[in-house]
Amino acid sequence: MDLLEKYNSVRKHSLEICAPLQKEDYVVQPVVDVSPPKWHLAHITWFWEEFVLAKYYPGYKWFHPRYTFLFNSYYNAVGERVLQLDRGNMSRPTVDEILDYRQHVDECMNKFLGGIPQSAINLVELGINHEKQHQELLYTDIKYILGHNPLFPPYRSGFSESQTNEVDHSFITMSEGKYTIGFQGNGFSFDNELGVHEVSLPSFSIRKSLVTNGEYHEFMKAGGYKNPQWWHSDGWEWVIENNIDSPLYWYSIEGEMKRYSLAGIESIDPLEPVTHISFYEAFAFAEWKNMRLPTEFEWEVASDYFAWGKRWEYTNSAYLPYPGFTKEKGAIGEYNGKFMVNQMVLRGASVVTPKDHSRKSYRNFFRPHLRWQFNGIRLCKK
Amino acid sequence: MDLLEKYNSVRKHSLEICAPLQKEDYVVQPVVDVSPPKWHLAHITWFWEEFVLAKYYPGYKWFHPRYTFLFNSYYNAVGERVLQLDRGNMSRPTVDEILDYRQHVDECMNKFLGGIPQSAINLVELGINHEKQHQELLYTDIKYILGHNPLFPPYRSGFSESQTNEVDHSFITMSEGKYTIGFQGNGFSFDNELGVHEVSLPSFSIRKSLVTNGEYHEFMKAGGYKNPQWWHSDGWEWVIENNIDSPLYWYSIEGEMKRYSLAGIESIDPLEPVTHISFYEAFAFAEWKNMRLPTEFEWEVASDYFAWGKRWEYTNSAYLPYPGFTKEKGAIGEYNGKFMVNQMVLRGASVVTPKDHSRKSYRNFFRPHLRWQFNGIRLCKK
Amino acid sequence: MDLLEKYNSVRKHSLEICAPLQKEDYVVQPVVDVSPPKWHLAHITWFWEEFVLAKYYPGYKWFHPRYTFLFNSYYNAVGERVLQLDRGNMSRPTVDEILDYRQHVDECMNKFLGGIPQSAINLVELGINHEKQHQELLYTDIKYILGHNPLFPPYRSGFSESQTNEVDHSFITMSEGKYTIGFQGNGFSFDNELGVHEVSLPSFSIRKSLVTNGEYHEFMKAGGYKNPQWWHSDGWEWVIENNIDSPLYWYSIEGEMKRYSLAGIESIDPLEPVTHISFYEAFAFAEWKNMRLPTEFEWEVASDYFAWGKRWEYTNSAYLPYPGFTKEKGAIGEYNGKFMVNQMVLRGASVVTPKDHSRKSYRNFFRPHLRWQFNGIRLCKK
Amino acid sequence: MDLLEKYNSVRKHSLEICAPLQKEDYVVQPVVDVSPPKWHLAHITWFWEEFVLAKYYPGYKWFHPRYTFLFNSYYNAVGERVLQLDRGNMSRPTVDEILDYRQHVDECMNKFLGGIPQSAINLVELGINHEKQHQELLYTDIKYILGHNPLFPPYRSGFSESQTNEVDHSFITMSEGKYTIGFQGNGFSFDNELGVHEVSLPSFSIRKSLVTNGEYHEFMKAGGYKNPQWWHSDGWEWVIENNIDSPLYWYSIEGEMKRYSLAGIESIDPLEPVTHISFYEAFAFAEWKNMRLPTEFEWEVASDYFAWGKRWEYTNSAYLPYPGFTKEKGAIGEYNGKFMVNQMVLRGASVVTPKDHSRKSYRNFFRPHLRWQFNGIRLCKK
Repeated sequence: MDLLEKYNSVRKHSLEICAPLQKEDYVVQPVVDVSPPKWHLAHITWFWEEFVLAKYYPGYKWFHPRYTFLFNSYYNAVGERVLQLDRGNMSRPTVDEILDYRQHVDECMNKFLGGIPQSAINLVELGINHEKQHQELLYTDIKYILGHNPLFPPYRSGFSESQTNEVDHSFITMSEGKYTIGFQGNGFSFDNELGVHEVSLPSFSIRKSLVTNGEYHEFMKAGGYKNPQWWHSDGWEWVIENNIDSPLYWYSIEGEMKRYSLAGIESIDPLEPVTHISFYEAFAFAEWKNMRLPTEFEWEVASDYFAWGKRWEYTNSAYLPYPGFTKEKGAIGEYNGKFMVNQMVLRGASVVTPKDHSRKSYRNFFRPHLRWQFNGIRLCKK
Repeated sequence: MDLLEKYNSVRKHSLEICAPLQKEDYVVQPVVDVSPPKWHLAHITWFWEEFVLAKYYPGYKWFHPRYTFLFNSYYNAVGERVLQLDRGNMSRPTVDEILDYRQHVDECMNKFLGGIPQSAINLVELGINHEKQHQELLYTDIKYILGHNPLFPPYRSGFSESQTNEVDHSFITMSEGKYTIGFQGNGFSFDNELGVHEVSLPSFSIRKSLVTNGEYHEFMKAGGYKNPQWWHSDGWEWVIENNIDSPLYWYSIEGEMKRYSLAGIESIDPLEPVTHISFYEAFAFAEWKNMRLPTEFEWEVASDYFAWGKRWEYTNSAYLPYPGFTKEKGAIGEYNGKFMVNQMVLRGASVVTPKDHSRKSYRNFFRPHLRWQFNGIRLCKK
Repeated sequence: MDLLEKYNSVRKHSLEICAPLQKEDYVVQPVVDVSPPKWHLAHITWFWEEFVLAKYYPGYKWFHPRYTFLFNSYYNAVGERVLQLDRGNMSRPTVDEILDYRQHVDECMNKFLGGIPQSAINLVELGINHEKQHQELLYTDIKYILGHNPLFPPYRSGFSESQTNEVDHSFITMSEGKYTIGFQGNGFSFDNELGVHEVSLPSFSIRKSLVTNGEYHEFMKAGGYKNPQWWHSDGWEWVIENNIDSPLYWYSIEGEMKRYSLAGIESIDPLEPVTHISFYEAFAFAEWKNMRLPTEFEWEVASDYFAWGKRWEYTNSAYLPYPGFTKEKGAIGEYNGKFMVNQMVLRGASVVTPKDHSRKSYRNFFRPHLRWQFNGIRLCKK
Repeated sequence: MDLLEKYNSVRKHSLEICAPLQKEDYVVQPVVDVSPPKWHLAHITWFWEEFVLAKYYPGYKWFHPRYTFLFNSYYNAVGERVLQLDRGNMSRPTVDEILDYRQHVDECMNKFLGGIPQSAINLVELGINHEKQHQELLYTDIKYILGHNPLFPPYRSGFSESQTNEVDHSFITMSEGKYTIGFQGNGFSFDNELGVHEVSLPSFSIRKSLVTNGEYHEFMKAGGYKNPQWWHSDGWEWVIENNIDSPLYWYSIEGEMKRYSLAGIESIDPLEPVTHISFYEAFAFAEWKNMRLPTEFEWEVASDYFAWGKRWEYTNSAYLPYPGFTKEKGAIGEYNGKFMVNQMVLRGASVVTPKDHSRKSYRNFFRPHLRWQFNGIRLCKK
């Protein structure tokens, strides 16, 4: 696929994700980490405008003088912006106005991509991958919006969060040795995957299948949320302060434990990989099992030997730079580097990760208490 | 007008107020005190369902089993409810679903009002007045939503918040004496106005006209927001913590002070009554003038002698029960009585008060820091 | 007693109150409203220095250049000050240094009072009454400090918070009429009691005795803290947020309800007047009894007919200025006036009110959620 | 030195550190992370009681039934405890009572150590090292208490926080290779240093001397606190929310920058190593220099080649378990492991680290915003 096709395909897909929504669903921001879908649609459009068209497309006319203020997410180098927590307070621009904005930018981008200079190609690739990241966030944010509504409206009936479940609880053993880490290919990767380097790993054993709902339910029934011994100190505080006693989206309805999925309220399939748990919960579960989470390096070197892609998998690695990591100059340099503190690395991909947007060197990251992503648990033996 | 006509007229007007809105405007709740317009439309419908149809209309079928949970505002006797601060997190039911809900209730109410039993008439009058109160809130909440949007969209061009301004700064002097306070008529009143009683008042002088934007601007320029001497201790804390330095909706744009009105961004008319100030600001302004605010009793007995109705006028009276005040049994008893602490009384009416919804005995009340209502300042001499 | 004797007597008494304390007890501030005893000792000393010696005593030498910053409580006109919530963070000056400070000021005051100018006499009277107010606070703050320590150390064994209890639950009925309110005498009063004026009162009945522990316990057992119907909306929120289920200092110890008094942990005497309840609780109790609290005017006119002085008695009156109230110029004007919002009036006096510091026109005031004072409940019939 | 001598020597030193304090200084807790000195003295005593005497000393009599509740720091397995933030609210037990407690425990420990069973030796070594950790905290907490007092009382005049400053800004270059990490000796170490393992490191260059006050001042003057480009996203938020513009304890006094040291207010020596900066500041400084912080592995392997011990040195490594890390059973297992999230590693030692309490494998750790420890910055070339 050439760049123009790729561009148009990814742009079209963002709208397809939103197709089942009502206008009202585009607007709300129930917690600070969950952005309104119309904000996502506008922000990913602004990214093209700010970083590509304004810089590389001669004579580009900005669609609206205030949209940079409204739709800049976190780039300090670009100037002031709306506070993240105020995104859900803004009824305007409307969805229709944002669709006009998208059309304006798409038209210019189509003209531009016809004769794109070599120097802009990497930026366009970055923009495409940026939009794919927001496509995953659209799914998880929509799930949060609908799944916290007391009416529990489905996003799309029949949507499957698990596909088939082949549960193989056996372990793969990797031998001690020196392994190479980092992205080594020709395609796109983020700057945080670069810096190929060697790590020395002791021998370890990692499980083929993810932890299932059924296994996690055992943990709950064994008092997992009532005993601090398996928890980090911070994790236990989080449990107590927030009265946590199950994964996010699990609801006890008339005495039975159910869960909200993008298809609506459903029974819990005990063989499906558990999801919507925090790093703290993943860690405590592993402790309870007398096992542990893999490091991101262990995960990367073992990943050829098991199936992955249904859940983002917690590692016990903090998100830190690889040797030799350097940021780009200017606003684009803010893409990854400035988040390299207070976050844990997740590896793999999930059921809502766009196609062609996963690879074994991909480093996803979140704060340890967050649960609204489709994350899961893979165990290592101690 | 008979009760049925009154009902249909007030119901129609609620929708007319919302006519200029976009779907997105119906959804957001930028601060806890400002409810989404669709919530108002649903809540005033639920009031009819809960308090009239469910009790007096044989065989009434509830429109939706969860709507009481969603649209109960503050009636504890009715059961659990969504937290007030979560109203803006709920994209569903949609505006269209709420309009269906209104239609269902209106059809039943029309049938019911055709043969209404005597015992239900007062309740229907209360419901009509309740809906009128929410009509005023619709205006002020819509103003907050649009007036805090960085794009400052107008609600309706040409909307006048002031009408003509006849400014007469002379004072009326009322003589010392015993005066009668409270509602004495045949029409509707709230329970908090009842309990006619006598008060002894010393002689006092009250100004014919409200404080104007121009006068208030003088206060600002004289350092009104920088000197604690004119403020309550709580008021000064509020100024400091919130960096208050002007009325709400006043914005300095390119060096000139402007204000957002329901017609959009406008110049400030120095002769228009100032509005969107807190009790703290009203009090400090009066102190700066070496004057004071009237008590609610002074206001009531002097009100025949000046024009009122453009702004809710702060009094220096706390919202407390009149002698002999009693609450009704059950949920309706929660209408007024339980708010009689931590609030100040405002008298009069404003440009967005519905017709036939004002009288000199009407006791409006708000917490002393709130500013989103169309309130204003009338001065008494010390 | 002449002014010098009065001065020395009140100064001595402040130290007597602190005599049972350990050095460590002088330092802590467990909540923002409770000040460290050493802060009180220094603040009441500073008051003499700032308002009397510095102004009226020629050539007065300030004891320490930073003490105004440290020991100013709330007078904005005097300049910047330590945040109230930081009082308990300051280990220095030590108790001994503060005692030196007291001695320095006392020596100067003794010289000064020997030849005091007429113009300073009122100020000295105010200072004496100011120190008496802090003596009451010393008791209540010490009680809070020791009564929230897990070891529950007694302040002074044998200290009685109730004295004898003559319980007469009969009611006095006052007839409708015009009554005179406010301080009318020759002695000292605060500015908030001045402005003698008439009020018209309907007939009412008020109980001779205060509500007892036994009666309050009945309220608790009847679900008083579990049913919102008796509570203000704000009061109910306060109950829920703070898990309130009994008066302050009531502890369930091995299944039995006990209370901490200044004498240590004790059984609860059912005939003693209940204390350490908030305005919200007092109001809810009265509602549950199908009665009400008196207004401050009712209390004042009926107070000649019942015994009072064991508990500060809640009224259902907000703390607002009497007609004609004016503040003094400068810092002294901040003494009372700036607190006339968001507070309820209490009348009477308590077991820890200093002698000669009570009169029927005295207006005490606190925010409605506070409980650390010795307050109580007197009922009126509805 | 035998174990008994070591015990008595470390116990004595804890009291020596407190010798310059006033009673009042022992009590306060100005922020949650800073504990009152009397709490430290009691807690380190309780550690011996709970973990050694109660388990190994037959017939041991607990000193007080409530002291476990009062002086347990964070061991969940031991039962409930006072909230950390309430330590400064407790005036009792007094300092003298705590000294009695120490004496009781010391007498028993002396008897016990005379015939100590082999099985208890490691625990006693842990207790000695635990007390040394609190000795460092005593210094830093005392500094916080006195250094935030508006009177800035010195702890001990003549106390030097820097000793001589030999400033050698040259870099050591370490060659690429496989290095061994972790504690390899016979003496005491914590469990978090165990698990000797190999790491592969690329070649790197690390500076011989720490960053000085003078260098850090350059960063400030170059707008270091005003430009987000050098900061982590979380770091920048922290700067803005807390108005950070200099290291902790730097005060602008009459236009000159000074600092509070344990000797009182002093001029800033430009050649002394900067201290009391957060991880965020250390990181931003390194970015501004176009350099970086070392990882904890780089630090450990290079540490034989430079002088260290004046400041705890920030690394860009998160505090995570070494391969094969396991916690002990029971409460002792909570010593280190449960903190292995949300913390950064510091290496080295500081001017207030007790003698014989440092080694190159020692892993200290703090949250990235904390500044009250004597930490510093060592640079690596990018």
